[in-house]
Amino acid sequence: MSEVSKRRLRLGMVGGGEGAFIGEVHRFAARLDDHYELLAGALSSQSEKAKRSAESLGIIRYYTDFEVMAEEESKREDGIEVVSIVTPNHLHASIAAAFLAKGIHVICDKPLTATLVQAEELLEKAKHYQAQFLLTHNYSAYPMVREARAMVKEGQLGYIRSIQVEYVQDWLTSALEKEGNKQASWRSDPSQAGIAGCVGDIGSHAYQLACFVADTQAQQVLADLSSWGEGRQLDDEANILIRFNNGAKGHLWASQVALGNENGLRLRIYGDKAGLEWSQESPNELTFSPIGLPRQSLRRGNAYLSQAASSASRIPSGHPEGYLEAFANLYREFALQLMENTKSDVLPSLLDGLHGMKFITATVVSSKQGSEWVSVS
Amino acid sequence: MSEVSKRRLRLGMVGGGEGAFIGEVHRFAARLDDHYELLAGALSSQSEKAKRSAESLGIIRYYTDFEVMAEEESKREDGIEVVSIVTPNHLHASIAAAFLAKGIHVICDKPLTATLVQAEELLEKAKHYQAQFLLTHNYSAYPMVREARAMVKEGQLGYIRSIQVEYVQDWLTSALEKEGNKQASWRSDPSQAGIAGCVGDIGSHAYQLACFVADTQAQQVLADLSSWGEGRQLDDEANILIRFNNGAKGHLWASQVALGNENGLRLRIYGDKAGLEWSQESPNELTFSPIGLPRQSLRRGNAYLSQAASSASRIPSGHPEGYLEAFANLYREFALQLMENTKSDVLPSLLDGLHGMKFITATVVSSKQGSEWVSVS
Amino acid sequence: MSEVSKRRLRLGMVGGGEGAFIGEVHRFAARLDDHYELLAGALSSQSEKAKRSAESLGIIRYYTDFEVMAEEESKREDGIEVVSIVTPNHLHASIAAAFLAKGIHVICDKPLTATLVQAEELLEKAKHYQAQFLLTHNYSAYPMVREARAMVKEGQLGYIRSIQVEYVQDWLTSALEKEGNKQASWRSDPSQAGIAGCVGDIGSHAYQLACFVADTQAQQVLADLSSWGEGRQLDDEANILIRFNNGAKGHLWASQVALGNENGLRLRIYGDKAGLEWSQESPNELTFSPIGLPRQSLRRGNAYLSQAASSASRIPSGHPEGYLEAFANLYREFALQLMENTKSDVLPSLLDGLHGMKFITATVVSSKQGSEWVSVS
Amino acid sequence: MSEVSKRRLRLGMVGGGEGAFIGEVHRFAARLDDHYELLAGALSSQSEKAKRSAESLGIIRYYTDFEVMAEEESKREDGIEVVSIVTPNHLHASIAAAFLAKGIHVICDKPLTATLVQAEELLEKAKHYQAQFLLTHNYSAYPMVREARAMVKEGQLGYIRSIQVEYVQDWLTSALEKEGNKQASWRSDPSQAGIAGCVGDIGSHAYQLACFVADTQAQQVLADLSSWGEGRQLDDEANILIRFNNGAKGHLWASQVALGNENGLRLRIYGDKAGLEWSQESPNELTFSPIGLPRQSLRRGNAYLSQAASSASRIPSGHPEGYLEAFANLYREFALQLMENTKSDVLPSLLDGLHGMKFITATVVSSKQGSEWVSVS
Repeated sequence: MSEVSKRRLRLGMVGGGEGAFIGEVHRFAARLDDHYELLAGALSSQSEKAKRSAESLGIIRYYTDFEVMAEEESKREDGIEVVSIVTPNHLHASIAAAFLAKGIHVICDKPLTATLVQAEELLEKAKHYQAQFLLTHNYSAYPMVREARAMVKEGQLGYIRSIQVEYVQDWLTSALEKEGNKQASWRSDPSQAGIAGCVGDIGSHAYQLACFVADTQAQQVLADLSSWGEGRQLDDEANILIRFNNGAKGHLWASQVALGNENGLRLRIYGDKAGLEWSQESPNELTFSPIGLPRQSLRRGNAYLSQAASSASRIPSGHPEGYLEAFANLYREFALQLMENTKSDVLPSLLDGLHGMKFITATVVSSKQGSEWVSVS
Repeated sequence: MSEVSKRRLRLGMVGGGEGAFIGEVHRFAARLDDHYELLAGALSSQSEKAKRSAESLGIIRYYTDFEVMAEEESKREDGIEVVSIVTPNHLHASIAAAFLAKGIHVICDKPLTATLVQAEELLEKAKHYQAQFLLTHNYSAYPMVREARAMVKEGQLGYIRSIQVEYVQDWLTSALEKEGNKQASWRSDPSQAGIAGCVGDIGSHAYQLACFVADTQAQQVLADLSSWGEGRQLDDEANILIRFNNGAKGHLWASQVALGNENGLRLRIYGDKAGLEWSQESPNELTFSPIGLPRQSLRRGNAYLSQAASSASRIPSGHPEGYLEAFANLYREFALQLMENTKSDVLPSLLDGLHGMKFITATVVSSKQGSEWVSVS
Repeated sequence: MSEVSKRRLRLGMVGGGEGAFIGEVHRFAARLDDHYELLAGALSSQSEKAKRSAESLGIIRYYTDFEVMAEEESKREDGIEVVSIVTPNHLHASIAAAFLAKGIHVICDKPLTATLVQAEELLEKAKHYQAQFLLTHNYSAYPMVREARAMVKEGQLGYIRSIQVEYVQDWLTSALEKEGNKQASWRSDPSQAGIAGCVGDIGSHAYQLACFVADTQAQQVLADLSSWGEGRQLDDEANILIRFNNGAKGHLWASQVALGNENGLRLRIYGDKAGLEWSQESPNELTFSPIGLPRQSLRRGNAYLSQAASSASRIPSGHPEGYLEAFANLYREFALQLMENTKSDVLPSLLDGLHGMKFITATVVSSKQGSEWVSVS
Repeated sequence: MSEVSKRRLRLGMVGGGEGAFIGEVHRFAARLDDHYELLAGALSSQSEKAKRSAESLGIIRYYTDFEVMAEEESKREDGIEVVSIVTPNHLHASIAAAFLAKGIHVICDKPLTATLVQAEELLEKAKHYQAQFLLTHNYSAYPMVREARAMVKEGQLGYIRSIQVEYVQDWLTSALEKEGNKQASWRSDPSQAGIAGCVGDIGSHAYQLACFVADTQAQQVLADLSSWGEGRQLDDEANILIRFNNGAKGHLWASQVALGNENGLRLRIYGDKAGLEWSQESPNELTFSPIGLPRQSLRRGNAYLSQAASSASRIPSGHPEGYLEAFANLYREFALQLMENTKSDVLPSLLDGLHGMKFITATVVSSKQGSEWVSVS
C-alpha cells in the first residue's frame, strides 16, 4: 500500500436546507466529478433547521447567517474557496456581494437577482473584487447544446433567420401557492421572486439557451404576459416576440400552466443553410437538417461530434445522460477554471446575468405597455 | 346476373391542369368514396393544354373559359351539379360567383380570395343564390382533429387559456420563384396570391385549425411578418400573437423557410382541466393530458373515440390514414349534405372564408404598423 | 366544349359484401387512381345480400355464384377484364382458377390459399392460362419500403447479417370469435383460414416484407407457435427464427394478443455497411444508419430519394400517405402492367404466394415438432 | 459556526484504472448520493499505472495486488468496508472470494463470472461468509423499471403471455478487437470474457431485466448464436427463444452488430389485461396499454406513480435522469441496506448472478446443439 492525495475545492452553500429543490441539485452537481468538498453551509436562518440540514448532508460547519459565514470562512486557513447560492432570487445579490468581497468565488442560481437595479448594483460592486462568478444556466451545459453552438459558430446554419424557443411546464395550472407548496409560494411572491414569475423562473432559461446557441442577444422584445392562476400576482405564461442582434426574428413561449408539459424546453433555429432542433426532455439528441439532404439525428457520445460536445460528456453513446450531468458540467468547468487559471467562454457570467435581468425587465415593461417593442440594452 | 344503379354527383373542375398540385388532390378526394363523377373541366385557359389535361384525366367535356362552362353546363340535363375551384387565389371569387349564379354548388380551395374586398363582394352576391359552398380547409377534416373539437365542446379541457399553433415548411428557403417553379411563382406574386404569402397560404390553415378545434375566433392579432427569400415581395414567415374571443391567448407561427420542416402543422391547446396536442405529420394520434393523470395517446379507429372521429374514418386503427383521406372527408360530407339535405356544422363555409380573409388582412396591417394589436372583425 | 375519353379496366369483385373489411379496402384502392371501373360483383352467396351490397356500392351487375360470374362476364363484350378476390382464404384457389381459366386477370388477397396443397394445385393449373395474377401483399407497396429495397439492391447495406421483423396486433387478446365478431370468426376457424391463424394472417405479411426488402427468402425456419385465446384452435402468436438464403439470420414475431399494438409491422435490417428501419405506423419515414455517420431520416416525397420511392407516391413530402395509398399502388401498377404490356418486378406473384404458403406450412410443422429447423422449399 | 458529522461507507475498488469504462461508472455511482468514500484501490496490477490512476482519482491508498489489499484493509481500523470489482469477467470470482472471506462487502459488475463452474464455486464459498454481495444489474434500477415490476406484481397486466426483450448495439460491427480497442479486446477473448461474448455482455442484462420486471425466470431456452465479426471467436449476436416459469413465452435478441443502435435495451411485456413497454434510451417513460383504453405514458417523477418508482428517483419530472442515476440507485440502496440492516428485495444477489450464468451457459449449449431447447436450472 502507498498513499497519494488530490486537490479538491472547498465549497460552501447558502440556502438549500430541508424541503428545498435546487440546493440538492447543486450538491449532486458538485459531487459528481469529485472536484469539490462541501464543508460549510448556511442552509437555513433558523438554527435548528440549519443544524439538522447540515447534519443530514455531512456538512461539518454550519451557520445561520451568511455574513458571519463569509467572514469566518474567509479567515480560516481551511475555509471555503467557493460558495453556492441557492436561495430565493431576492437574496442573491447581497449574498453574492458578501462572499465576493471576501475573495470567495460564487456559484449562483439564476436569475441573477430579483430586480434589474439589484443586478446593476451587484455588477458595480463586483468590479472591485477578484473572485470569480458562475451563473448556473445549466441547460446551456448539455453536450448537444454545446454541439449546436459550435455548429452555429462554424457557419453550418448559414445566416440565421428564425429562432423559436419554448419552456413549458404545467405544475402551476392550479394555484398551488395557496396550498402551502413551498416552491410555488416563493416563485409567485413578488417580494421574493422579483418583478416576474414564469418569465424570470423559466423564460430566462429559454432566452439564455437561444442566445447561447445562436451566439446573439435580443435587440428588442414585445411581450404579452398572463396570470392564469386564481389570484396570482406574477405572470405564469408569456408569449414574447424577439428581434435579435444578428438579424434573426423569433418567438419565446414560456408557460407554467400548459397541461401535459413537464420541463418542455425546446429550441429550434433556422438558417439559410440548415436547421437545428433540440429538446431538453430528449437531451442526448440534436436534429440537424441541412438544405436538400435528409434530416440527421446527431447523438451524444459519437465520434462524429466536435470537442465541444465530447468534452461535456462522461459516458458512451446510448447510455442517456440527463439533467444532473449537464448541471455538473458547470461545476466541473468552473472548478477547472479556478484550479487551472484557464478561462472558459461557455460559462455564464455576471454580465450574462445582468443581460438576463434586462431581458426580464423589458418583457414586463412591454406587456404593461400593451405589447410594444421595448429595447433590451 | 341482375343490374342495379347508384346516384353520384356530377362534378366539374376549374384549374388543376398539367403541373398543378392541388387540383390533383381534389380529384383523389372526389374519387375516394365514389360520390362524384368528374365529367367537365376548364383545366387551363390554353386550348391544347385544356384538352390534353382532360384527356389524361378522363374528363369527357372540356372548356377553356369558366364562364362558358358555367353557362353550358347549367343548361344541360346531364350538366354538372358541383364544381371544384383549384386556381390561384385571385380567380376564386369570380369563378365561384359564376357557378353559384347558375345554381351549381361550389367547392373552393382556400384562402377564399386574394383580398378582403373580393371576399366581401362574393359574400354579398352569394346572399342571392341557393347553391351551396364548401371551402376546403382540409386539415379540420382529420378524424383526430374532429375528436379534439368534440372534446373541447364537451368541456374536457375546461376553460381554455392558451393556444399554440404552427404551420412550418422549408420549401421556400431559397428563392425558387426565380427558378421557374410554378408553385413558388404564383404563391409569391401579389397579383395572383393576394396581399399575403405564407400567412395566406398556410397561416390561414393553421388559424382555421385552431379556431375549429377551440371553437372560437380571434378578437385581435399582433403580427411580425418577414420576407427572407431574396427579392421576395410577400411574407414567407410570420409570428402572430392572438387574443381569442373565449379569453384564451396564443401564438401562431407560420414559416416556409424553416429547414427540416415539411408540412409541420401542429396544434396545442391548454385548458384548466386538460391539454391536447395534434400534429399533421402523425395525424392518427391525439395526445390528451388530463390534470394529474398520465398523458394518453388517443388513436384513430378505436372504440373509445366519439362519433365525431369515427364518422370521419374509413379503416381500422393502426393502418394509417393520411392527407388524402382527410381531404376526401370534406368531399364525402359535402356530397351527403347535398344529396340528403342535411346540414353539417363541421364543413368550412363562405363565412369561414370571409373570416379567414379578415384574419389575413389584420395580420398584414398589424405588421405594417410595427406590430400593433389589430381587431379581426 | 369538346369531348374526350379515357381507357379504364373493367373490374369485378368476389367477396367483400356487407360487414367485410378487406373488400372495401380493395375498392378504395381500385378507385384512387381511376384506372378501374367496378362493374360486376358476387359479393355474397345470399341473393338479397348480394343485391343490397351491389346497390350500395354502385356495382351494376351482381351475381351470387362466382362460377356463373366468370362464365357470363367472359362472354360479354363489356365483361370484366380483372377480378378482385376478397373472400376467406379457403375459397381463393377455386375462385382464382375459375377466372384465370376464362382469361380474366386476378387480384387476390393473401395468403394465396388455405393450404399448401391448394396453392400447388393452383400453380399447376395456372401454367396453362395466359391471364395475369397479383397477390396483394400491400405493405411492400409503401414508397419507403420500395426505397429500402432499392437501397439493399444497390449495396448500400453491404453484406446483410441480421433481419428482425414483427407484425403485432392486440385485437384477439380476448376470444372475440366467441362473441360473433365476423373478422375474428373466420380467421380462427381452420376450415376457412387454413392451417395457421396469426402466422397466415399477418406473419405472412411480415415474412414477405422482409424478403422483399432484403431481396432473399428463408432457407430454414424454427417456430414456436402459441394459442393464448381461450379455446382458440389456431395460433395467435408466433416466434420464428429464420435462416435466409443470403446468409442472414433473423427473427419474426407475429402476435394478435400484444396489448397496445394496432398494426405494428416493423422491419429492421442490418448489414456490415448500414442499417435500415421502417415501421408501418409511420410509413413515410425510413431510418438509415450508415456506419460511423449520424442516423438519417429519409422521408417520402423528397428529391433525394430514388425512382423506386417517387414512382410509388402521389403527393409532396410532409402530407402523410397511408395504408390505402400503398394498397392503391398495387392496383395502379397492375393496371399499367395490363394496359402497357410491361412487366413489373415489384408486384407479388403466384410464385410469391406459393412461397408464402411454404413458409406458413414450415412454421406450423416446426412448431409441432417441438421447434426444429424445417426447410422452406 | 458549529460542527456536525455524517457516516459514510469506506469503499475500495479493484480494476478500473486508466482507459477503463465501467470502473468510472461505478465511481460516479458511488459519489452521487454521498454514502461512500473511495479510499483504497488496486486499479491496476502494474505499479506505475496503479499509482497514477489512484492519484488522479484521489484514492489515498493504492495496491497492485487484490489479495494484499483484502488482507491489509481488513486489518486497519479505518480499512474499507465495501469493495467494487470492475475487472474483466474471469477475475470476478477470485477477487470476490478474497474480500468476502475478510468480511468486506462486495459490489461486483456482471456477469458474475466467466464460467458456470466459477459461479458455482463462488456460491459454495460464500455460504461460509457473512459479508454481503451486490451484482450491478443496473438497468433494473431505473425508476420506471421498478414501476413496471410493481405493476406486474400488483396484477395490472393479468396473466403474462408474451415477453420480448432486446439489447442491441452496433459498436462491434467491425472487428475492433484487431485494432487495439481495449473494450473490444477483452470482451471478445474467451480467456477473459468467458464462454459467451454478446450474450454474456449484454444478453445477460436483457435477460435479467425481463425476469426482474415479469417476476419470473426461464425454464428453457433455444438459441441461435452468431459471430459476424471477421475472425471473432465469441458470439456477437444472439436470437434466443425462451419459455418462462410463469407460462409466458418470449424472445431475446442481443446484437453488437446492428448498425444504428447504441444501447437499445428494450422490454415489452404483454398480459391478458395490459401491455408494458420500456426503452433504456428513453428511460423516464413507461408505456402502459390497458385493454380497451388509450395507451398511457407514465413518466418518472409524477405523483401518480408508486413508491417503487419514486424511491428510486431524485429530481422532479421532466428533468431527465439517466444511466448514472440508475446505477447510483444500486449503490445507494446497498449502502442503506448495509447501514440500516434492512434487506432489499430489488437488489441483484449472488443467486441472481448464478442464475444468469446458467442462462448464458444454456444458450451457448443450445446453439452448439443446433438450436435445441435446453433447461435453465
